[in-house]
Amino acid sequence: MIGPLNHVGVAVPDIREAIAFYRDILGATDITEPEPLPPQGVSFAFVNLPSGQIELIEPYGESSPILKFLERNPRGGQHHVCFEVADIHVAKALMEDRGMRVLNEPRIGAHGTLVIFLHPGDSGGVLIELMETAKAGH
Amino acid sequence: MIGPLNHVGVAVPDIREAIAFYRDILGATDITEPEPLPPQGVSFAFVNLPSGQIELIEPYGESSPILKFLERNPRGGQHHVCFEVADIHVAKALMEDRGMRVLNEPRIGAHGTLVIFLHPGDSGGVLIELMETAKAGH
Repeated sequence: MIGPLNHVGVAVPDIREAIAFYRDILGATDITEPEPLPPQGVSFAFVNLPSGQIELIEPYGESSPILKFLERNPRGGQHHVCFEVADIHVAKALMEDRGMRVLNEPRIGAHGTLVIFLHPGDSGGVLIELMETAKAGH
Repeated sequence: MIGPLNHVGVAVPDIREAIAFYRDILGATDITEPEPLPPQGVSFAFVNLPSGQIELIEPYGESSPILKFLERNPRGGQHHVCFEVADIHVAKALMEDRGMRVLNEPRIGAHGTLVIFLHPGDSGGVLIELMETAKAGH
């Protein structure tokens, strides 16, 4: 069912500082400009690696779901893991059939495709995002 | 400097239960048998995806470095992120030059190549592992 590991979401208190760390210390050369994603309450930037990505996320708005995470982890930290699936609606139905709590109706994520999140209490403490694979040409 | 995102390390209290979750709920079809890695104080298994991996790690021995993590996160959770580098000794010198605290001398990791860990206090709360890319044929 799950396909590629698409990205690791890393919550950060300051996305510009985080970008500088991945660029100047770790030497990543392909990092996108920060963009707001209001439906998810974050601004994000992707650190693109030869394979895989880190998604840096900074709180956006006063009800950002990552504000609590940053209260508990003021320096930031790993927030979620995102796996690709072929069809988000099929994946959602399958997860529910298997007793997983799905936290939201499918909505557009940072890659422009539909995403859902699974309750970390059902998945070993890991917040799992499932995203529909982008169609070729997009 | 950093190359591909090799894997995400997920600490788990019970590696057999975690394997069952990734296999039976998420539908992963390629999961390795758990193996002890005494120098790192863990038993590990890889969930191999079409690209990327999850490294499940369970404490091994009484001084396992992940025991404290599991005390704070009894259900488990994301523990580290591993990036590949071409040469671990070059990477270590570069990280030190750039003011990062390197937590260990290069030692053999779960993929059979040399690895180091960087202090999460220097990297936005994320425990970063750097591993030398496996040579072709290995």
